[in-house]
Amino acid sequence: MPKSDIIVKMIFDKWNGSIKNWDTLLNELNDETLLKEIVPGKNRGIYLLGHLIAVHDEVMILLDLGQKLYPELYETFLKCADKEIIQIPSASQLREYWSKQCDTLNQKFSKLKTEEWFEKHSAISTDDFAKEPHRNKLNVILTRATHVVYHTGQLMLLK
Amino acid sequence: MPKSDIIVKMIFDKWNGSIKNWDTLLNELNDETLLKEIVPGKNRGIYLLGHLIAVHDEVMILLDLGQKLYPELYETFLKCADKEIIQIPSASQLREYWSKQCDTLNQKFSKLKTEEWFEKHSAISTDDFAKEPHRNKLNVILTRATHVVYHTGQLMLLK
Repeated sequence: MPKSDIIVKMIFDKWNGSIKNWDTLLNELNDETLLKEIVPGKNRGIYLLGHLIAVHDEVMILLDLGQKLYPELYETFLKCADKEIIQIPSASQLREYWSKQCDTLNQKFSKLKTEEWFEKHSAISTDDFAKEPHRNKLNVILTRATHVVYHTGQLMLLK
Repeated sequence: MPKSDIIVKMIFDKWNGSIKNWDTLLNELNDETLLKEIVPGKNRGIYLLGHLIAVHDEVMILLDLGQKLYPELYETFLKCADKEIIQIPSASQLREYWSKQCDTLNQKFSKLKTEEWFEKHSAISTDDFAKEPHRNKLNVILTRATHVVYHTGQLMLLK
């Protein structure tokens, strides 16, 4: 198997595994639990869920996959801290958004060929990419997978 | 640049960045804080530190890099839960172990050539590896980097 195929599989195993672990945990927590702060004064579970959706919507743009699904979440979950939020979608609404977004991303990811994962993402210039070819589309998947893992470690503490 | 070199850089950027983020956070927390439970009834910061050292000692074996530095930590931080531990090294001792281990690993990692990172690790058979070439040494670095990130998300809550 060519090394480029091996590495795309490695990164997507990590992405899929990270999403699966998050989902398993999310399904174990009811909506009431998601409204609790993980540690007094820190983010609530529901904030982490909305935050992941907002971050993964940015992936649509970074990878030229189309428009964001939930652009209205940007302000709430990327620009504001949990404590600053006044209005927030319900946990069941966010669960639905998340599930639909995961399906959409998977569908779009599956259409890219191995070579395309080594192309530049939309937030780096052609000149910079020539010097730093590791800042490719696959690296976006890697960094977002570890981002999911970071917050999974936190959400786990609500169990 | 060959794709194999690009990907080794991607994974090591992730590893080094994960260790750096952990270290920055660890340096911001004093020994007294490390002795606190992150959430009542859950692991203490000091347990997470010992746990990472024990896990990274296993990497020495998985990658055929030599003997473990702190085999005595295996029982305490991999076999037992925090609540079952009676004797534990001090936080300052563990900080020293961690720092020395990071240096040792970096030194050993730097000696491997790109091709060697795509070889099998010691916990997979030659037959299985022929079918699953993504289970290589580089994948060990990837999975351990995300493991650090998972616990960094938790340790962050002690701030």
